Amino acid sequence: MSKRVAIVGVGQSVFGKRTDSSIRDLTFEAFREAMGETENLETKDIGASLVATAAGYDKQRSPAAVIAEYLGLNPQPTFLTEAACASSTVALRTAWAFVKSGLHDVVAVIGYQKMTDMTSEAIQEVMGRAGDVMFESPFGTSMPAYYAMFARAHMAEYGTTEEDLGLVSVKNHYYSQFNPKAMFQKEFTLEKVLSTRVIASPLKSLDCCANADGASCIIVASEKRAKTLTDQPVWIAGLGLGSTPMSLASRSPPFTGFESAVEAGRQAYAMAGVTTNDIDVAEVHDCFTIAELLAYGDLGFCKRKDSAKFIRDRETYLEGRIPVNTDGGLLSKGHPVGATGGSQIRTLVHQLRGQGGKVQVEGAKTALGHNVGGIGMYCAVTILQA
Amino acid sequence: MSKRVAIVGVGQSVFGKRTDSSIRDLTFEAFREAMGETENLETKDIGASLVATAAGYDKQRSPAAVIAEYLGLNPQPTFLTEAACASSTVALRTAWAFVKSGLHDVVAVIGYQKMTDMTSEAIQEVMGRAGDVMFESPFGTSMPAYYAMFARAHMAEYGTTEEDLGLVSVKNHYYSQFNPKAMFQKEFTLEKVLSTRVIASPLKSLDCCANADGASCIIVASEKRAKTLTDQPVWIAGLGLGSTPMSLASRSPPFTGFESAVEAGRQAYAMAGVTTNDIDVAEVHDCFTIAELLAYGDLGFCKRKDSAKFIRDRETYLEGRIPVNTDGGLLSKGHPVGATGGSQIRTLVHQLRGQGGKVQVEGAKTALGHNVGGIGMYCAVTILQA
Repeated sequence: MSKRVAIVGVGQSVFGKRTDSSIRDLTFEAFREAMGETENLETKDIGASLVATAAGYDKQRSPAAVIAEYLGLNPQPTFLTEAACASSTVALRTAWAFVKSGLHDVVAVIGYQKMTDMTSEAIQEVMGRAGDVMFESPFGTSMPAYYAMFARAHMAEYGTTEEDLGLVSVKNHYYSQFNPKAMFQKEFTLEKVLSTRVIASPLKSLDCCANADGASCIIVASEKRAKTLTDQPVWIAGLGLGSTPMSLASRSPPFTGFESAVEAGRQAYAMAGVTTNDIDVAEVHDCFTIAELLAYGDLGFCKRKDSAKFIRDRETYLEGRIPVNTDGGLLSKGHPVGATGGSQIRTLVHQLRGQGGKVQVEGAKTALGHNVGGIGMYCAVTILQA
Repeated sequence: MSKRVAIVGVGQSVFGKRTDSSIRDLTFEAFREAMGETENLETKDIGASLVATAAGYDKQRSPAAVIAEYLGLNPQPTFLTEAACASSTVALRTAWAFVKSGLHDVVAVIGYQKMTDMTSEAIQEVMGRAGDVMFESPFGTSMPAYYAMFARAHMAEYGTTEEDLGLVSVKNHYYSQFNPKAMFQKEFTLEKVLSTRVIASPLKSLDCCANADGASCIIVASEKRAKTLTDQPVWIAGLGLGSTPMSLASRSPPFTGFESAVEAGRQAYAMAGVTTNDIDVAEVHDCFTIAELLAYGDLGFCKRKDSAKFIRDRETYLEGRIPVNTDGGLLSKGHPVGATGGSQIRTLVHQLRGQGGKVQVEGAKTALGHNVGGIGMYCAVTILQA
């Protein structure tokens, strides 16, 4: 059994409308980058591959087998892990358990999604079916509609404004300029954000992340093995995973947070033996602007009622208390569902290695990733240390 | 960290055309039976639930959230594990790692599938897409067609006959008479099997398992916790998981076995420290009659070339060397994809507890489960001990 488990390599494809690539090509792009970060690691050394993706966006069923075949990972174990948009960090937690329990020495977590072959309307229909198809989604609760209800609840409860929501978009699009793998890489003013088309009031186009194609890869290893593979291991210090009932009808007011995220944060902080004060840099799941404000409260970055003030005071900019989404977040990187969690982890690993470039958080020692599935029915929180 | 990991409760719904039940009801039926086998276990004590199912048979996406909500398992971790027809034993292996690594004390593995709401033609289309949709399934390789090719290869290589295949069906249907949760529970003569409609030559209707609705549940616990939950813990002694390229074009002749199964068997035997000679009773993945013959060879029950002789000599009947599929197997129980592996494990647990009734293997101490995903691209082998 390994005392600690390290991340030894991270990779990501360019996110965006990737008409040039199949799911095979996308995952290879991410896998190659991650493998290239390690020394002396060959495909035969990958003890198991965990593929993370959400079903419904392409025809290929049971895709772990296709990906493992294309990447040359047979006859080693492979299978699929799915928790909607949290799939790849849920898989990372499983990879940790595989190494920690002694089952494997090296495990690759490969997340991907190919979404842009579908029309936007078809994507919304598929996404809606990650809500309760018996009691809720038939009544029009698409993902933007779900999150719009949370935004309205936050506005009603705490006086949050549309401008406050827009500030999240401004920040994340600003930072994406420095991320060459982001979908947009472009700055927007608050006025511009507020003037975009209403999708589900109060959420406007730039309050919403974009559907995208992309892949990510995280390679983990036992402590002993990690030292032969890299000079800069990043340690998995805390892991949390929580759940919330899928249907809103089974949840309780005031709908200004996700119990799954609170639970996942509690577990991860306890396992790592740290508090919010120790977090130097974070990636949170900003599928919509409101989701980032919910995360501030759920993770204890500030009091729930102060989350709008937290962004107004620029506390999540590089110069603030906890820089958040320094890679552009889902809002500007794009959100290829199964790849997103792994992309967050990659950004945090870069920060902890001091490879953050223009968005480097100086001296970052402890980093937190927060990855929500669907409308908060899953949340995985990962704490990493240099 | 727990030294050993035990199975403390097993449950299964009745398999068949369950027009009376939704996926919620089916999983509850299995979960209730498994919980009922334990003492003093409450839903809040289930540290995590792993849901196992294959996507594509119903509208509900990200179903782990629906199942966890219905079974009262929030806010604990939950997510989906998928490896086609091997989903639930792949999830069992993950549950083992969660307990062994110290992440959780008690984990529930819940497998299910609801298939009979679809037409048989629609099911074949969905199943085919668990083959390679880019290079193979568009050319007509439905699941029966895939396995028919393996049957033809076996006949060409070893002289296996259609009668030999039929004998597997005769055995498994015979034993299903004693399984009140099996879909058929009816004996068939070899003449009857051979006279049924050709599905994909040489496979006839009774060479094929039936699509079904059903659920299974396996509850595992750490060694310490297990002793407070049951007087009859069954120990997970060996776990193996292997993979084969999805596309047949990437495999090698003579197509008379699955590399995934050989690899999974090798891992499981080594981990348990046993050999084929130690196996007292087995459940193997007989989605088609040929699949059971492939399993005999892949697992080393006999030499590959002797697998037809092995069934002709009744070596896999109760009085033979290794009784196989004493619950009727997939051929007669029905095959609700995500539930099947868990159902095999339930049967083996009953055997090791001495609860096998009319099909009890006297003094069974070591049992083996063999659960194949799709056309052999995954195989999980589980070895249990009393």
